[in-house]
Amino acid sequence: MNNSNTLFEKHRAILDAALAALSLRTYYSPYPESPRAYAEDADGKAKAWISAAMNNNYVALDSTGANGWIGEEVSPFLQTGIGVQYPAFSADTLLKNASLVQTEWANTSVEARTGLLIEALDRVKNRFFDIAYATMHTTGQAFLMSFQASGPHANDRALEAVAMGYKELKSVPESAEWVKNMGKFDLKMNKTWRGVPKGVSLVIGCSTFPVWNTVPGLFASLITGNAVIVKPHPKAILAIAIVVEELQNVLAENGLSKHIVQLGVDTLDKPITKVLAENPIVKMVDFTGGSEFGNYIEQLPKTTFTEKAGVNSIILDSVKDLKSVLGNIAFSASLYSGQMCTAPQNIFVSKHGVQTAEGLVAYDEVVKGIAAAITVLVDNPKAGPGTLGAIQADITFKRVLEAKNLGGNLILDTKAIVNEEFKDARIATPVVIELDKSAGGIYNKECFGPILFVIKTDGVEDSLALAEALVQEKGALTCGAYTTDMATQNRIAATMNNAFVPVSFNFTGAGFINSHAAFSDFHLTGGNPAGNASFANSEFVSKRFVWVGNRMMD
Amino acid sequence: MNNSNTLFEKHRAILDAALAALSLRTYYSPYPESPRAYAEDADGKAKAWISAAMNNNYVALDSTGANGWIGEEVSPFLQTGIGVQYPAFSADTLLKNASLVQTEWANTSVEARTGLLIEALDRVKNRFFDIAYATMHTTGQAFLMSFQASGPHANDRALEAVAMGYKELKSVPESAEWVKNMGKFDLKMNKTWRGVPKGVSLVIGCSTFPVWNTVPGLFASLITGNAVIVKPHPKAILAIAIVVEELQNVLAENGLSKHIVQLGVDTLDKPITKVLAENPIVKMVDFTGGSEFGNYIEQLPKTTFTEKAGVNSIILDSVKDLKSVLGNIAFSASLYSGQMCTAPQNIFVSKHGVQTAEGLVAYDEVVKGIAAAITVLVDNPKAGPGTLGAIQADITFKRVLEAKNLGGNLILDTKAIVNEEFKDARIATPVVIELDKSAGGIYNKECFGPILFVIKTDGVEDSLALAEALVQEKGALTCGAYTTDMATQNRIAATMNNAFVPVSFNFTGAGFINSHAAFSDFHLTGGNPAGNASFANSEFVSKRFVWVGNRMMD
Repeated sequence: MNNSNTLFEKHRAILDAALAALSLRTYYSPYPESPRAYAEDADGKAKAWISAAMNNNYVALDSTGANGWIGEEVSPFLQTGIGVQYPAFSADTLLKNASLVQTEWANTSVEARTGLLIEALDRVKNRFFDIAYATMHTTGQAFLMSFQASGPHANDRALEAVAMGYKELKSVPESAEWVKNMGKFDLKMNKTWRGVPKGVSLVIGCSTFPVWNTVPGLFASLITGNAVIVKPHPKAILAIAIVVEELQNVLAENGLSKHIVQLGVDTLDKPITKVLAENPIVKMVDFTGGSEFGNYIEQLPKTTFTEKAGVNSIILDSVKDLKSVLGNIAFSASLYSGQMCTAPQNIFVSKHGVQTAEGLVAYDEVVKGIAAAITVLVDNPKAGPGTLGAIQADITFKRVLEAKNLGGNLILDTKAIVNEEFKDARIATPVVIELDKSAGGIYNKECFGPILFVIKTDGVEDSLALAEALVQEKGALTCGAYTTDMATQNRIAATMNNAFVPVSFNFTGAGFINSHAAFSDFHLTGGNPAGNASFANSEFVSKRFVWVGNRMMD
Repeated sequence: MNNSNTLFEKHRAILDAALAALSLRTYYSPYPESPRAYAEDADGKAKAWISAAMNNNYVALDSTGANGWIGEEVSPFLQTGIGVQYPAFSADTLLKNASLVQTEWANTSVEARTGLLIEALDRVKNRFFDIAYATMHTTGQAFLMSFQASGPHANDRALEAVAMGYKELKSVPESAEWVKNMGKFDLKMNKTWRGVPKGVSLVIGCSTFPVWNTVPGLFASLITGNAVIVKPHPKAILAIAIVVEELQNVLAENGLSKHIVQLGVDTLDKPITKVLAENPIVKMVDFTGGSEFGNYIEQLPKTTFTEKAGVNSIILDSVKDLKSVLGNIAFSASLYSGQMCTAPQNIFVSKHGVQTAEGLVAYDEVVKGIAAAITVLVDNPKAGPGTLGAIQADITFKRVLEAKNLGGNLILDTKAIVNEEFKDARIATPVVIELDKSAGGIYNKECFGPILFVIKTDGVEDSLALAEALVQEKGALTCGAYTTDMATQNRIAATMNNAFVPVSFNFTGAGFINSHAAFSDFHLTGGNPAGNASFANSEFVSKRFVWVGNRMMD
């Protein structure tokens, strides 16, 4: 622990920059998102690392007290098991380990925790290429997205949580002398305050973004002094295992117990999630995944942070240049085969068409244009495979193949394209289905994967009303809107914002509604049915500890 | 509304001072707590005001749409009805009114809200004497406490909530230009953020502190843009009616609807609280009162802030001067006849006695000393009536009269003392009962009112263990501890703080564990069973709105 204050000083500049970014909400990232910014041999080393990792035990993780080795991950690119085996712990062992170190971590100063956690992020940075390949071969994300989403972008979100936690924990002083003049004398008290951690925290990962969606809760709980059990999705463990390994190493090097962060692996057949979540030792649960399980988590009598399913809409009213808009939408819908929580599903278009700088484009032309833009993207042998990646789960793959039977007019069916590097990859291009506005039974629910509905409405007000009704019922992570009319823009903003959904207006070029930037964009608002948390507002950290003050008189 | 920015500027200095105090947690109060600090004729005017108010309709409140006049308050000092009648609204009318003005208030700027609310507190300040008499004749608090608790101390808490809300709402900028260098070009977005109010707020008052416990939630909801329905306890309306009246006046003078703050009065026979609380229009509920109803409120699918019952302990280990300590405890237990949520109930004393500067005092002597200190206080014709006040409710009075039958050794029974000013006052001095540590069935629950248990333990560690077990199960607002040993102090602090209970050490003289000072002491921690809220941590305001951001590209 002697090292911890040194670590705080070492990382003070990055903390200060992160705090400034959080206040200004301007662009900030200390971890470059381009693979080219890293060592030349990093990619080669990572390829060697993952070859060695496959079909082997992950021995770099703490395995004291493990009762065996388990793992059942399947690469969506290879469609074979990757064979990595992780130490298996009983729920009891995980809970007992966490309980035993909770006080140790709670008593570690805020500065020490900050230094240790940013140091761990530094170590994780050196593993970005390992993490990229681990993410690829579990989620089906293409390399660049695997690298960026699980590497720098996830580290950004983790640092954001650390900085927000530091800020909140420093918002009340450690002590004060309180003096009240009572007329003839002064009443004096010495007061102290401490943000007391709530206790053991469970962070439940998802199959598609095993790092990006796990580290905010993980680092938020850690900075606020809570021991964490990370429970990854059984099909997406390897990438977050690397993060846990690096955290454990930094803790151990500084004389702290590795049990402050544990990886609790399970299998689909023998899940341990509910046993962990329901145990009274666990005071907090972070969850990313389906709405049914998320609703179960939310009703537990503890502090919960959820990201569940939502249905994201695009309202297409009027544009400057339709081609660039349709290209942008096509990319948003195709990126990682629509398996992002921020991917658009419903595109609301007026039956009267879309006004553009070159005049009105008829509704039918717009629908065809969307399909054409997707075809151009996915058929491009350079861009297609790298954009789509692979389909993470069989169930998603089946849903896409059967989407043509959902109803409505099938405008573009899914198809397979060739990924030259991974011939066996599970690939499905986006389906486009046109629906009448009356077909809410089809489009008013999440159809996870590359399935896009174009919904014919009576005009932009109708589009907005349908989109709003949908978010009130199902929630949304994001909403895209295209309009050149400022009054319309204001109406869309007011309506969707009052339903607690953020809106991205007139995105073209390199701006995509899918992307939420750390230190600037809140991911989720926590106010609509898509989830009760927000990465990272002040509540995302302040709910993890309790202010307790003592008063002393002489 | 033109006036609102002027009001913000007018009150800017007080806001800045409040923000500074919140950060430093040093003493601050802009509203003097001594009645002598106010106009000489204020008391006389207030006496005339309450005489006129009694047996009359409270016409100063907005009564548009009322379906009659109701009121059933009884003065604990006179033991007769005070006859004030308030406009009665159906729950539907209250909810409809609130819904209709929610957007108007949400669209009022943060600065305008801040100015309006601090202006209202200024107007309330001019009514402190009216509020004092209104509080006396509903709660039974003696004049000085009525004045201070419902007047300056309540205003302090209201201002604290306003300042905390302002701080949180300003923690994210209204807009930013976000520029990300993409290598060959810059990706630019204009971003905006808004704290979107969650919606209509219900604030449920209690019978003993109708202002102090209502204004934190009321002002926290208002500063964050939510229309509020105040639902006072049917037996304690008059004092908070004055606050609502002043808020309505300031709103109306500035062109805003009075319905932004409504008073929803009901009677014990025809309560409207559950109808209001369960209606989906109501998004937030603040509640102070019993644990059973509080638990019901907490399980509603909305944002809730509760203060419920707790059991407060004193751990008496070692002292410098026993007499001053026992005098302090006697006052804490007698103040407002123990009807404070922060009053002590259980005093844990080692069977080995209490170490003092003059040597060991035997256990039996300590028990007798507690009773003697209470007798000295209540028998003092000057101090007794002014400290005890009167018993608010018949049920409390009966509980005290029957306390001698609870079990254990009756050390001091309750008795009546004479209040020269109010001969008919419902008065009961504290009961002191000695219990063995095995009598948890008696002392491990709240016995609201002036009932004090002295519990004989095996030593300070035993006292601490019993106190901790109690707060884990029942919660507590406060804990007093007396020890001259620093190691013991640290153990008590660590143990109770980890159970999320604050500790006041070695309080004597004018320092009482009952008092929580705004801007410095958190009232409740929100972390133990006594309630889920804390006046006023950041969550107390941040849970009332949702951050939503929009992004615009050209």
